[in-house]
Amino acid sequence: MASIFTKIVNGEIPCYKIAEDENYLAFLDINPLEKGHTLVIPKKETDYIFEIEDDAFAGLHIFSKKVAKALHKAVPCKRIAMAVLGLEVPHAHIHLIPMNDLGATNFMKPKLKLPAAEMEEIAEKIRKAL
Amino acid sequence: MASIFTKIVNGEIPCYKIAEDENYLAFLDINPLEKGHTLVIPKKETDYIFEIEDDAFAGLHIFSKKVAKALHKAVPCKRIAMAVLGLEVPHAHIHLIPMNDLGATNFMKPKLKLPAAEMEEIAEKIRKAL
Repeated sequence: MASIFTKIVNGEIPCYKIAEDENYLAFLDINPLEKGHTLVIPKKETDYIFEIEDDAFAGLHIFSKKVAKALHKAVPCKRIAMAVLGLEVPHAHIHLIPMNDLGATNFMKPKLKLPAAEMEEIAEKIRKAL
Repeated sequence: MASIFTKIVNGEIPCYKIAEDENYLAFLDINPLEKGHTLVIPKKETDYIFEIEDDAFAGLHIFSKKVAKALHKAVPCKRIAMAVLGLEVPHAHIHLIPMNDLGATNFMKPKLKLPAAEMEEIAEKIRKAL
């Protein structure tokens, strides 16, 4: 069965899109730890990120770097944190999280629930900073 | 002033070394969140990871992937989590953390303090799995 992220890639499920190319896609996490929390995925579905071939693995990270720089311009924070866990959705994804303290990558924290209008506004700011 | 990690690269400060090549170095985090918690760094000192040039950034991640695979073989866990924060040491570093739950990348958690003999034993296991 296609992962929820493959459904997003295929346009079957909507997303707040940040950036896209032939191989990779970035969109806002619908359950963000911080405002601007973004996911970057390879379009080709692979569960465990360390199983991705070197070229695609490198490309995914370089794509993430571009998104991280835009995110840092668009959302006030000290830095952008990067995290990969992969226990919940079996489709490799990199979390980019605007960070102000060491709790930024604590996935046990309660998630934010932001109105759709605010999510769209955040996505638009990040897209403009790309 | 050289970062503490540059001092490790130069052999001025000892480490539990896991892997090394011309450009990158992996060693055990001395204050691990989990047993086997490993740091991967570029030998060339750069503070913010997203300022590293594409080639070196890609190489750092591919090197990390090799280390992560060995770590996963050597230390019982569900997966290896990857995290980059960078608020504490101004020399880019990737955390590779054996993960069993979503708290794996919570840097607010108390750190482990393991005896030197156990640290060396863990490092040796990971090196053998490379």
